[in-house]
Order: sequence, then structure tokens, then C-alpha cells
Amino acid sequence: MISMDDRLKEQIDFILEIDKMKEILRQNYLADGSARENDADHSWHLAMMALILSEYSNEKVDVTRVVPMVLTHDLVEIDAGDTYAYDEAGALTKEKREKAAADRIFGILPKEQGTWMRGLWDEFEACNTPESKFAHVLDNSLPLFLNHAAGGISWKEHKVKRSQIYKRNRITGDGSAKIWEYMQELIQENINKGNIIDDRS
Amino acid sequence: MISMDDRLKEQIDFILEIDKMKEILRQNYLADGSARENDADHSWHLAMMALILSEYSNEKVDVTRVVPMVLTHDLVEIDAGDTYAYDEAGALTKEKREKAAADRIFGILPKEQGTWMRGLWDEFEACNTPESKFAHVLDNSLPLFLNHAAGGISWKEHKVKRSQIYKRNRITGDGSAKIWEYMQELIQENINKGNIIDDRS
Repeated sequence: MISMDDRLKEQIDFILEIDKMKEILRQNYLADGSARENDADHSWHLAMMALILSEYSNEKVDVTRVVPMVLTHDLVEIDAGDTYAYDEAGALTKEKREKAAADRIFGILPKEQGTWMRGLWDEFEACNTPESKFAHVLDNSLPLFLNHAAGGISWKEHKVKRSQIYKRNRITGDGSAKIWEYMQELIQENINKGNIIDDRS
Repeated sequence: MISMDDRLKEQIDFILEIDKMKEILRQNYLADGSARENDADHSWHLAMMALILSEYSNEKVDVTRVVPMVLTHDLVEIDAGDTYAYDEAGALTKEKREKAAADRIFGILPKEQGTWMRGLWDEFEACNTPESKFAHVLDNSLPLFLNHAAGGISWKEHKVKRSQIYKRNRITGDGSAKIWEYMQELIQENINKGNIIDDRS
């Protein structure tokens, strides 16, 4: 049997390991456009959104499961790195890289805690429960809110097309009709401003 | 009565306002000593600790209240700034600055959500419930874990004395005897290394 001190050591090892999230830069900028956000920033911001916006989920969600899910959903990027939403080459290898990362990172924790957290990540990836669908709504809408606030800076930088945003958000409306409706207003506004390329034929 | 769209607007305004947390630098460094962490980083990391370490609370805690409490406990620093743990001059005006900040920031939200979140912050500050005592254990132990991992960099930078750390942590043992015991081992180790000044007479 593992001693209490060994158990605490595994937990502290995990807590120090995940500090690396603060150094993984995302493509997305802060709302004022001054700098890029990191994965810890992003995960915190999603958890705050989960606390505030759960009323807009199409299905009733247990917020006490959504919050840990979004807090942990990007931990795999410690090994696998951040794959930009519109990086098609990166997307091809993303699943394999992230599964190996999950094995290692959640494996640092005491077994039952690692299993619980890995389960939340698997559920997020499978995206077939009310909580995971709503977590994806948050994960897809926050970059759009920030990008809109920052004058569309990362859409312009990556020459993002309307079709790419709609493809990425093909199930966002299933998670929250209301938030997806608001996102579509912002997409149209940014097409009008020339920040997003309108590629409808 | 407020319309659904006005309500969503207040919520999105709040979500964009709190993005500023990502730009408030703390005195504390990352575990690898490469950079300072920001308030969003820190709040995320505390929430992760709450998920992992609650078994060490002296009193049984409701983790689903500890997590939102630590996620929101530093929002007042958007207006009031980060007051370093051992800044005695700053500490004198901290309470007044932070109360005004809480009025403004939580006031952006729809009334019942703002009241709920303000209540969590008031509870954290009063520190007289199992959840708020444990939240303080996390808030006081994480900088110590990171500073130890980073070779004591911010203790050396600020010439921190043993008595200052013990004064700040005078109630940490009431929240978690086990974590406080582990912290004291780390404090002694860093005194031995010359990272913390031993001012016992």
C-alpha cells in the first residue's frame, strides 16, 4: 500500500508538472490584442464562463462536472503542444500525440485521481454528453469573443475563411442554440469588417 | 424586466472584463524560474490543486465551492493590483482598494450572479468556513511550492525572512495540518540552502 507521504508526493509532482501550461502559448490574443494567451489563462477563462453561462446549454448540465472538464481539457498540450484550430496538417496527428500525452500526464497522479481526470478528458474528446457538448461550446466561443474584441487580429493573421469557422462549429448549436446564435452575429459583423474572408459561392 | 439579450450582454461584458487577469503579473515565478506567473495562471493552478488536494483539509470541504472561490478570489486585483505577500505598506490600503474593486467588478454581472460571486469573495476574505480556510491553504502553499521548485528565486529577490513566512501562514495549519507540515519541511530546506533568512533569535 502506498504511504500518505508517497501519495502527497505524486500529487505535488503533478501540480508542479502542470505549471508548464503557463508557458504554452495559443494562437489567440488577449481581448486587448496586446499579447497571446497561454493554456492556463485559457482554461481558467473557460471555467469562469462555465460558472456564468450554463443557463444557455440546450440540455441541463452539471456545472460541477463542466468546470473540472474545462480546467483539465488542455493538459495534454504539455506534451502534444497547441494545435491551432485551423491547422489541418497538425490535426492529422493530433489524436495520437494527445493520447500518449494523456497516458503520461494523468499517470503522474495517484491511480484513482488519474483515472477520474483521464475520464473527464476522454469524455471531453468524445463530446457525447451534455457536459462535454457544453464544454466545447465554451472552448469554441471564447476565442471568437476575444478575437472579436481584439479587432479580429488572429483571423486576419491566419486569413481565416467563414467556411473554416462554420466547419469547426458544426455542432456548437447542438450544445447551445443561444450562444451559437450570438456567435453567428459576431461572425457576420467580422465578415462585414473584412476580418473574416467570406468564401460562400 | 431585463431581456435575455441584455442579460447575455452583461455576462459577456464580465467575461471580457476579466480577461485583464491575464496581464496582472505576480511577484512569484513559474516553477522553472523563467518568467512570472499572472493572476489567471495562478487562479487556474489553485483550482487544479483544489481538485487534487481536498483530502488534506482538516475539516470536510465541499470542493464544488472551493473551486469557484479560488477561481474568483483575485478578480479584485483587476482594479486593486497585486499586493505582494510581504508588502507591509501595500497591506494597509489593500482592504479598501479591494472592496471598491469588488463593487465594480461583480457589479458587471446580472444581479443574482454578481451577488453569488461577491459572496464567495467575502467568504474567502473572512476566512471562517472550512472552504475558505482550505482555499487560503492553497493560496499560501502554491507560491511556496513554486518558489521551492524555482530555487527560491523570489525569496532571494525580496530577502524574505522566516518570521514573515510564519506570520503569513499563522492559520495555514488550521486549514490543513498535513500541507502545513510539508510546507514547514520546505521552509527549513530553503533556510538550510540560504534562500530564506533565518531570523530566529
